[in-house]
Amino acid sequence: MSTAKSRGKMNNSFNPDMISQLDARARENVERRARLLGPAYRLFYADPVEIRRAEGVFLYDSDGNEYLDAYNNVVSLGHCHPYVNAKIKEQMDQLCTHTRYMQDGILDVAERLLATFEDEIGHVMFTCTGSEANDLALRMAKYHTGNEGIIVTSEAYHGNSELSAGFSPSMGENARLGAWVRRVPAPDTYRIETDDMGEWMAARVAEQIHDLKRRGQGLAAFVADSLFTSDGVFAHDPGILAPVLKVVRDAGGIFVADEVQSGFARDGRHMWGYKSHGVVPDIVSMGKPMGNGYPVAGIAVRPEVADAFGHDMRYFNTFGGNTVAMAAAGATLDVIAQENLLENCARVGALLGDGLRALSKIDDRIGDVRGTGLYWGVEMVGDRDSKTPDGTRAAALVNELRRRRVLISATGYHGNVLKIRPHLTFAPEHVDRFLTELEGALMAVQ
Amino acid sequence: MSTAKSRGKMNNSFNPDMISQLDARARENVERRARLLGPAYRLFYADPVEIRRAEGVFLYDSDGNEYLDAYNNVVSLGHCHPYVNAKIKEQMDQLCTHTRYMQDGILDVAERLLATFEDEIGHVMFTCTGSEANDLALRMAKYHTGNEGIIVTSEAYHGNSELSAGFSPSMGENARLGAWVRRVPAPDTYRIETDDMGEWMAARVAEQIHDLKRRGQGLAAFVADSLFTSDGVFAHDPGILAPVLKVVRDAGGIFVADEVQSGFARDGRHMWGYKSHGVVPDIVSMGKPMGNGYPVAGIAVRPEVADAFGHDMRYFNTFGGNTVAMAAAGATLDVIAQENLLENCARVGALLGDGLRALSKIDDRIGDVRGTGLYWGVEMVGDRDSKTPDGTRAAALVNELRRRRVLISATGYHGNVLKIRPHLTFAPEHVDRFLTELEGALMAVQ
Repeated sequence: MSTAKSRGKMNNSFNPDMISQLDARARENVERRARLLGPAYRLFYADPVEIRRAEGVFLYDSDGNEYLDAYNNVVSLGHCHPYVNAKIKEQMDQLCTHTRYMQDGILDVAERLLATFEDEIGHVMFTCTGSEANDLALRMAKYHTGNEGIIVTSEAYHGNSELSAGFSPSMGENARLGAWVRRVPAPDTYRIETDDMGEWMAARVAEQIHDLKRRGQGLAAFVADSLFTSDGVFAHDPGILAPVLKVVRDAGGIFVADEVQSGFARDGRHMWGYKSHGVVPDIVSMGKPMGNGYPVAGIAVRPEVADAFGHDMRYFNTFGGNTVAMAAAGATLDVIAQENLLENCARVGALLGDGLRALSKIDDRIGDVRGTGLYWGVEMVGDRDSKTPDGTRAAALVNELRRRRVLISATGYHGNVLKIRPHLTFAPEHVDRFLTELEGALMAVQ
Repeated sequence: MSTAKSRGKMNNSFNPDMISQLDARARENVERRARLLGPAYRLFYADPVEIRRAEGVFLYDSDGNEYLDAYNNVVSLGHCHPYVNAKIKEQMDQLCTHTRYMQDGILDVAERLLATFEDEIGHVMFTCTGSEANDLALRMAKYHTGNEGIIVTSEAYHGNSELSAGFSPSMGENARLGAWVRRVPAPDTYRIETDDMGEWMAARVAEQIHDLKRRGQGLAAFVADSLFTSDGVFAHDPGILAPVLKVVRDAGGIFVADEVQSGFARDGRHMWGYKSHGVVPDIVSMGKPMGNGYPVAGIAVRPEVADAFGHDMRYFNTFGGNTVAMAAAGATLDVIAQENLLENCARVGALLGDGLRALSKIDDRIGDVRGTGLYWGVEMVGDRDSKTPDGTRAAALVNELRRRRVLISATGYHGNVLKIRPHLTFAPEHVDRFLTELEGALMAVQ
């Protein structure tokens, strides 16, 4: 039905039209992949990377070449973490089963997670993926409020299910947004001129609520990743969510904090990104790094929001909350504490931020550097006055870094923001290596 | 908003109002669980089972009591299978990463899976759960056909995402069905009198297509589990889907074979349940037993159905198709072949069916016995003439078996069909033990 449409957009994806430029081995893999997996899959980089094994913050291809992984928020504690893997293996050999039998493990993990949230948040429910967590969160938000409206930021990403893809505009023009999904600009401190970003954003949200009401619809939820990562990483202006949530709650909506990207100590300030904003969410969704690679995700929720949904219906997820997933999640919490990873993230992240800002002082193609902890965005522009987004140069830099065996990606609507998101175990020497290679890449890319 | 609604229905679930009847330890767990996980979770059995470890077809509680697990289609190769676990562990220590790097493992698994399907089915895509697989399948069906209509059987279960729960009527009266979801009766050979069930069902599907068209809607997909397990297990009448699919395809719809329950040799006839019907699906969804407990699921699809979706958009699932999931899926395929589990399923399943039929000859509360391979339904009725469904007696039997440390559950709209679904590695001695205990339970439950 849609052959005239342009190919689905994705920053930093390999373009299959360029296959002839690959070496024979890569060409064979890419062709075989297209034949077996079809057209919906995307590879990273103009010259895709083949990976065979990994350890700590490094990846290795089958020739033994080492890559510095500066783009991994799944195995966030480092690749193949021995402690986490040992706990998973132990549980695998003991019992792998679901939540319809009584077990202590799931309750222990739920209790430990709840201790990281404010008292208002009282229940945890487990899914397998972040997409499932956001899908469940919004099903619950709609059931609780009786409303259908969902407000997100312009380039948000919240998942791949029909519901969550429907409020993930970063999936591109061809991916349908839901009928009652409304968008507001992200808090783009680089381009939006305002003295009070929180009030500015609250006014935009109020406009969308008004529009929903004009159509006889109410607001179910405002959903945000507190680091606004897929919008271009806007992490350095905490506090903006408080006025937004006032407007949201006055309209009867709830706030879903999507912590799949920003949670588990990633922002170097707190365990959860939303905490910098001084707000308490109604639902928190979490995923990716929760089991350091083992599939586990979930939501934390205020009891009054879960009450009707849980009473009137039920929720079961075959793999969600299973004994092995719980061992992985428990071990991940152990390691974050044992290895002081929140503190490491703050300390090493500050070094990374300083280094990026130093580069921006000597290279005016860098329009803005922003981030917190170990999540940074470096915005490439045509010139600093007009702030013209330069996605072409950003892509060239990502690919030049890949040539130098340092892996990052790009984000934002124009794909012009370098997205740097290393393991929480990144050390100062890794930052040095990263910055050296980025400086080299900036010189190589004219 | 909905406090007046009755509690969400689930067959064989523990009723929290009965908590005072539990022993102190169970009561503490149930209370702690309700406090931490909230009201949406359900436990099996009037007297919930606490499980600490497992091996083969047995579960053990923390007092070391042994339970015969006759209800497990997730770790379908047996609990803690040493070969599968060894393969998972090996891969965990080598690399756990996603599909945006080139790897051979995912392609090898895709190729092996495709070899089990007809030539028309050309691509495999990986998700994490069966719900995600069905959600993706229907997103694709709607995009490919340009239609919204979905037809399922009356008590179907296809998933827990908003989209898939919307075509899962077995979730109960309080769970909203999608606006364009239509239902047809399952092929209930016990109650529907017809000489040709396929034509009978095709006529019902045609009525629903007509109704959709009267509302300006077309058909996207007919979705069916070929064993109709949540409708009450109607497995013994293969061939009925062929006439149904003719009607579906004439209306421009596609057929999604939900093999999450019936796939991976479960029916003892073929690797996939749909094959008994002599049809070729447009999309096959698979899940639960695919990694013997490791979260892995996916779809197999005709290239022409995936083409526009994959070109215009993209699909990425952080955990779907990751290297460890692929090791688990590959190992599961190995074991099915190495241990001749399709043949075991047929042979041991036939013993189980014979035993169940023998019991029905001496106990007229059993109205019907039906099944194939290691998936059986035993329908309990008030009397054989009126065929009145007897859900109360079925529940009593399930709970009496649990007391005897044999675990099964119940299915169907009235919850009156015993659902027996043991591991594919069930042996004749396990069948003997099961039948002995069922016979005892039938005597104990008056």
